Amino acid sequence: MKNQPDFLESQIIDVDWGVGVKVVKPCNLYNCKIGDHSFIGPFVEIQKDAVVGRNCKVQSHSFICSKVTVEDDCFIGHGVLFTNDKFKQGKPSYEPEDWQETHVGSGTTIGSGATILPVRISSNCVIGAGAVVTKDLTEPGVYVGNPARRLRDV
Amino acid sequence: MKNQPDFLESQIIDVDWGVGVKVVKPCNLYNCKIGDHSFIGPFVEIQKDAVVGRNCKVQSHSFICSKVTVEDDCFIGHGVLFTNDKFKQGKPSYEPEDWQETHVGSGTTIGSGATILPVRISSNCVIGAGAVVTKDLTEPGVYVGNPARRLRDV
Amino acid sequence: MKNQPDFLESQIIDVDWGVGVKVVKPCNLYNCKIGDHSFIGPFVEIQKDAVVGRNCKVQSHSFICSKVTVEDDCFIGHGVLFTNDKFKQGKPSYEPEDWQETHVGSGTTIGSGATILPVRISSNCVIGAGAVVTKDLTEPGVYVGNPARRLRDV
Repeated sequence: MKNQPDFLESQIIDVDWGVGVKVVKPCNLYNCKIGDHSFIGPFVEIQKDAVVGRNCKVQSHSFICSKVTVEDDCFIGHGVLFTNDKFKQGKPSYEPEDWQETHVGSGTTIGSGATILPVRISSNCVIGAGAVVTKDLTEPGVYVGNPARRLRDV
Repeated sequence: MKNQPDFLESQIIDVDWGVGVKVVKPCNLYNCKIGDHSFIGPFVEIQKDAVVGRNCKVQSHSFICSKVTVEDDCFIGHGVLFTNDKFKQGKPSYEPEDWQETHVGSGTTIGSGATILPVRISSNCVIGAGAVVTKDLTEPGVYVGNPARRLRDV
Repeated sequence: MKNQPDFLESQIIDVDWGVGVKVVKPCNLYNCKIGDHSFIGPFVEIQKDAVVGRNCKVQSHSFICSKVTVEDDCFIGHGVLFTNDKFKQGKPSYEPEDWQETHVGSGTTIGSGATILPVRISSNCVIGAGAVVTKDLTEPGVYVGNPARRLRDV
């Protein structure tokens, strides 16, 4: 007899919702917190313990992992990928204490296709489409490229 | 009582279809135009007023936004992300008149994971996988990298 | 009368499953092979003849195409895109004999948002988030950037 896998369904479960949130399904959201009047587009995954603030937009195809905090009034473009594991042992860790935090300050805009390593990002930054952010961004500015570098003031 | 979000479903609504189009669901397509004999893969979003020509393939996970026109005989790889907002005021604009157009000439091929800023791309270009196109590409050629640079003739 | 497209549904069909596999739907998997105890996240597409080994994780939004072999104990992050067509004629080929193979050695970890051209990757590599791998990686190491370059030993 042939093997059969366990099939799970993407789900929206145990989310702490603010008021007036809109969500486009299908998406996979679990044990996370979404602030007032925020929007979550289709094909999005948001993991346990991630926090999205108020008045944020998280566009289609984005992935927000555990240990990410996005403050209020942020825009997360399409296909933005956060990370929390720098593979310190040369492979992924499944121990949450090995994962690192990411913090995105209020009013920051992240362009589509950006990848965000575990870093702190100042408020009021603009991160260009396709950028790969590998270090803390300590002041407002426009950052682009792989690895992302400061291009100019906002 | 806990808050509950508005749940919307990804949808296929008010699309101007050519003849012989194939679409793999789930995808989120609205108020756009898809030309004859084109193919749209799964997990694709195409926004209002975007135009895809005839005999095109738009592969899985791609996002085509408002104000993008893709001419005939183009190939849009997997996870290709278009943009229309350069965040001129340091944040996204929700006024369509602030958004910029993208035009992809006929017979152009865009590799998987490419990100396209609002530009004009010549016909018969090849854009490498993972490229970030930040400027107009005024003649046919192979373009790669972040930012994309001309590598050679096709 | 208006045209109507052919609607297909993303599907899980004719997969050769190992024992103890978990799959999160929706995803689009067809005529591929998934090894024992591997995990496939949501919004994943895996094409005909692709092979994923045992004890692998393929995270959300990834795309694994025909002619890709991933050996045992590999981690494929979120939004990782494989390719098999280098557009040699300046456009995609629909003849499988024109496509090239990719081979990922056992114990290799590929970070989120990486794009993989058709190459051979050694066992026990770490590929950074957002990297674009354009050449064979012949020995273990940490590789980052676009194009990916060797950063250090694992």
